[in-house]
Amino acid sequence: MSSHTRSTRQDYFHHLPITTRWMDNDVYGHVNNVVYYSYFDTVVNTYLIGHGVIDPSRGQTIGLVIETQCNYFAPLSFPHTVVAGLRVARLGSASVRYEVGLFRGEEEIAAAQGHFVHVYVDRDSRRPVPLPPALRAALLPLLVPQAHTGTAG
Amino acid sequence: MSSHTRSTRQDYFHHLPITTRWMDNDVYGHVNNVVYYSYFDTVVNTYLIGHGVIDPSRGQTIGLVIETQCNYFAPLSFPHTVVAGLRVARLGSASVRYEVGLFRGEEEIAAAQGHFVHVYVDRDSRRPVPLPPALRAALLPLLVPQAHTGTAG
Amino acid sequence: MSSHTRSTRQDYFHHLPITTRWMDNDVYGHVNNVVYYSYFDTVVNTYLIGHGVIDPSRGQTIGLVIETQCNYFAPLSFPHTVVAGLRVARLGSASVRYEVGLFRGEEEIAAAQGHFVHVYVDRDSRRPVPLPPALRAALLPLLVPQAHTGTAG
Amino acid sequence: MSSHTRSTRQDYFHHLPITTRWMDNDVYGHVNNVVYYSYFDTVVNTYLIGHGVIDPSRGQTIGLVIETQCNYFAPLSFPHTVVAGLRVARLGSASVRYEVGLFRGEEEIAAAQGHFVHVYVDRDSRRPVPLPPALRAALLPLLVPQAHTGTAG
Repeated sequence: MSSHTRSTRQDYFHHLPITTRWMDNDVYGHVNNVVYYSYFDTVVNTYLIGHGVIDPSRGQTIGLVIETQCNYFAPLSFPHTVVAGLRVARLGSASVRYEVGLFRGEEEIAAAQGHFVHVYVDRDSRRPVPLPPALRAALLPLLVPQAHTGTAG
Repeated sequence: MSSHTRSTRQDYFHHLPITTRWMDNDVYGHVNNVVYYSYFDTVVNTYLIGHGVIDPSRGQTIGLVIETQCNYFAPLSFPHTVVAGLRVARLGSASVRYEVGLFRGEEEIAAAQGHFVHVYVDRDSRRPVPLPPALRAALLPLLVPQAHTGTAG
Repeated sequence: MSSHTRSTRQDYFHHLPITTRWMDNDVYGHVNNVVYYSYFDTVVNTYLIGHGVIDPSRGQTIGLVIETQCNYFAPLSFPHTVVAGLRVARLGSASVRYEVGLFRGEEEIAAAQGHFVHVYVDRDSRRPVPLPPALRAALLPLLVPQAHTGTAG
Repeated sequence: MSSHTRSTRQDYFHHLPITTRWMDNDVYGHVNNVVYYSYFDTVVNTYLIGHGVIDPSRGQTIGLVIETQCNYFAPLSFPHTVVAGLRVARLGSASVRYEVGLFRGEEEIAAAQGHFVHVYVDRDSRRPVPLPPALRAALLPLLVPQAHTGTAG
């Protein structure tokens, strides 16, 4: 899918409602472009923590973000609730490419979408480590069918 | 009530669930003290916008914040949902003192509480104006019984 | 000094320029009330880290915020630089009351002012600990002359 | 230049120091990935406002963000100052592709870099409008020499 084709709700396999905040809106009355990324890492980390496969405070494996990107199609605004859709486009040996769509309330077409790439590293050395098996297992249900899952990358 | 007595859920007359975000947590693994105030103005403005008594984009009367305060009793953390409780401790002629309690999930005792004072002004002149009657009416159900409601202040 | 008397630049003993950001401004074109507190904990922590008396990543003593408060007198706006003034109003045995004034550019009178109370705790037990001597020494130059410095509190 | 080749300070034609904040750091002790984008729109908008070619409060032409992207190479951390470098990679008829590099203090190699695409629209209709001549003139000094400047796109 081109990044310029707006995705739909069913293109994602997990959905999380996120409440907007007064200060999310900028001077133009819409959610500031920066804030969209706070929704991205919220849906990713809520999923990982909720599945018990990452522990930000004590876990030995942590996810570092190496790339993010977002296309903005239609404005989001406080006080509406945003629904974040999540899927995995690539499960590498040490990294995962997540794709996120953001939806206004009940709308079917994404208001914004983008990606978020985590590389998993050792907390102390900050060197990449193989994806822990539990993490990989938790992400399989989110994997886009035709996506690449080789363990070489 | 002293600001140091922890309030309970039923001390507030309106409750709003607010989802926390990954970036709310600071280096100590808890929601940063600053972020609590984003929950404060979210519960206040969601209530006002939801009742149709303030329109941030076009309304002639806008609320300016002149004082805020918060006591922190127990940590909040992503990914937990916070419930914000809201009440009105004083309805002045041009200003409102809101009081907010923040609760972790289902807990009965506030994790934090504080106040938020709005003065209502004309959008253009930025001079105080009497509270619009619809705004006053919308706030009455939130008013603490013994609170001062004189129109002189 | 009453919290309603606007302080001046020389009421503070340390000053830190802080650059505002586009997203600091809210829909009314001024820095959102929440963001002021990010300036508060930035001036406090920059001072402490700069003097080598707190290490957020590894130090055994950390500062937890137990109360904050702010009065807003005049708007701040992106893209102006804010100067944060810092003083210590009370050095307790385990806690410090910092007072902060925020100034627009070169202005002499505070646009906002408030306080920020830290209790110092052990990182693991999260129980209060006596202020480390180096921390106390670093704060003495910021102490308001008439302030209370007893070690009992 | 590939987005994976780290740029250097002289690859940018305008540089803005931005002070980091305590709350920029996340639980891992580094600036959260989201916050980098607040530096992006700060350097862009500071430049435009400083040159008097955009007025967020009253101007008839406003910039809407349609795409952003960032590669993260090395961590940034509070309390260090970040320098944001800015250049223009494409000046279209109604849109501008800005490229931003973020540098730690005096370092020559970017810690992060990405792009930020503005489309300029009429404040009321939110329809694209030709770049105002003053805006175009202000951006010419930032234009990468080999960049595309056709007025068709």
